[in-house]
Amino acid sequence: MNEFGLIGAYFARPARKALLGVGDDCALLAPPTDEVLAISVDMLVEGRHFFSGTDPRSLGHKALAVNLSDLAAMGAKPAWFTLALALPRVDEAWLAEFSSGLFALADAADIELVGGDTTRGPLTLSIQVAGHVPAEGALRRSGAKAGDDVWVSGSLGAAAMAVRHRSGDVVLPDEVLAHCAGRLDWPMPRLALGAHLRRHASAALDVSDGLVGDLVHICEQSGLGADLDWECIPVDPALQGIPEAQRRLAALSGGDDYELCFTANPKERQAIEVLSLSLGLPLTRIGVMRPGAGVTLRDINGCPVETGRSFDHFSSP
Amino acid sequence: MNEFGLIGAYFARPARKALLGVGDDCALLAPPTDEVLAISVDMLVEGRHFFSGTDPRSLGHKALAVNLSDLAAMGAKPAWFTLALALPRVDEAWLAEFSSGLFALADAADIELVGGDTTRGPLTLSIQVAGHVPAEGALRRSGAKAGDDVWVSGSLGAAAMAVRHRSGDVVLPDEVLAHCAGRLDWPMPRLALGAHLRRHASAALDVSDGLVGDLVHICEQSGLGADLDWECIPVDPALQGIPEAQRRLAALSGGDDYELCFTANPKERQAIEVLSLSLGLPLTRIGVMRPGAGVTLRDINGCPVETGRSFDHFSSP
Repeated sequence: MNEFGLIGAYFARPARKALLGVGDDCALLAPPTDEVLAISVDMLVEGRHFFSGTDPRSLGHKALAVNLSDLAAMGAKPAWFTLALALPRVDEAWLAEFSSGLFALADAADIELVGGDTTRGPLTLSIQVAGHVPAEGALRRSGAKAGDDVWVSGSLGAAAMAVRHRSGDVVLPDEVLAHCAGRLDWPMPRLALGAHLRRHASAALDVSDGLVGDLVHICEQSGLGADLDWECIPVDPALQGIPEAQRRLAALSGGDDYELCFTANPKERQAIEVLSLSLGLPLTRIGVMRPGAGVTLRDINGCPVETGRSFDHFSSP
Repeated sequence: MNEFGLIGAYFARPARKALLGVGDDCALLAPPTDEVLAISVDMLVEGRHFFSGTDPRSLGHKALAVNLSDLAAMGAKPAWFTLALALPRVDEAWLAEFSSGLFALADAADIELVGGDTTRGPLTLSIQVAGHVPAEGALRRSGAKAGDDVWVSGSLGAAAMAVRHRSGDVVLPDEVLAHCAGRLDWPMPRLALGAHLRRHASAALDVSDGLVGDLVHICEQSGLGADLDWECIPVDPALQGIPEAQRRLAALSGGDDYELCFTANPKERQAIEVLSLSLGLPLTRIGVMRPGAGVTLRDINGCPVETGRSFDHFSSP
């Protein structure tokens, strides 16, 4: 099977929304003229972002999910994506599973594959997504105001515990592992939440590298600091039996959760609580934006809590 | 230096055309409302698309150039690009050279870096470009008609000979090598040509994998065949001293030339010759589109000529 056969068998589907899809020098797209285009790209490398031997179906899902999460964090509606894929060899069973996981999520999120590139090389995936959003409604990181509440969706820490288990750092009981591995391998981008937040939030981002480190970006770009309350952090209930220091590290700096962290004027509290109920998704108020810089975290006695360090791709050998 | 420091030092520049550039979950772009968006992505892997130890400045240039070449082949005007980069380590001297080569071409082509991703991994680059083009003017591969002339820009074969020299297959004289290496390492996307061809060509693509193999895509998508005349193929004059069989292989199936191959109604001949003069770029008529399928090549006596096989990333171990 050559490069074009591979694309034809596993990745070329008739264009639905694109004017011209896979198979020419470029794809041709007609974005809505009353909105702006939101684009984001991520690269996933075997052994770095996912373990060697990862189930290809979950990998196809996750590679797209982490990009959709960026669209969600901007409040954008998914439209098109491209896939650049380096493969050590042509493994048709692997490709069938990978593309099946990829397209199941693509169909659910109503996003269309319009182009890509395949080549031989160490297993590496780069997906770029494009969506659209009303220009004034896009959720930038720079929009937080002093006094705004800090919120986070869902629960935190499970994905990071799955990473630690698979790395051999900890041993989780089977039922806890099953839950945590589900969060790590099958993240669900918070697209509906992001779309609704355009009316309520002042700033937002997705939690990919760890809550505290990611919130620092909102602080820096808004010229503010944030005070968080450890007792309020929605640590995943499945982590209940795990020692507090480990739970804290996982929830605050573990990353891979793909929840949304956002800020909103306190006047929005009731609307956000109604939104939480209508989406069936917990939305938890965890702190407040303040003048200054940096993120501080305090326990129930007002004592500072160690937050750990977010994931940095170049921090360790 | 961490991931964010690296991006800040080498890749973040203030947004000029984008509403929001590097540094948020997504970039925000406002494409012209009277044109459509053209996007393309390529992935370059060390040891596969470029030799280990390649001059990082030329690599920065080439990684963008091969993508701009896809926009040129569509007749699109460059606007924005993203860069996903896996690096084995942070090497600041390498990054400074790489980004300098990248931005020199980006500025020349008036295209803006609006987002990206950096991670640790085997050296791999994935660039995605976006441009815009009038919907009706885009140069699709499917537009050729029987009786159309087949044209190619510039000259062919030099880049492929540089690859063969560096692979140890052949030894080129120094001055020939210098010329061939320049074509391989510093390809110039034919953007001005592509923009003008919107008024004259019926189909176009860029020659990246080899003239014959690439022209097959126009044949397949237009439901036609093509007859080429070997005596007309503009083999790079620097290859004059090289045995005919090698020159032929390099010019017909060598790839990496990034010239444009296009088809046009014979009524366009004079306009295309004027265009060639005004651009200072040779445009050579090399054959004709015909009913049927496949590409045939004949010599001055009408005898079939062996065309070689285009590059396929999965054809060899």
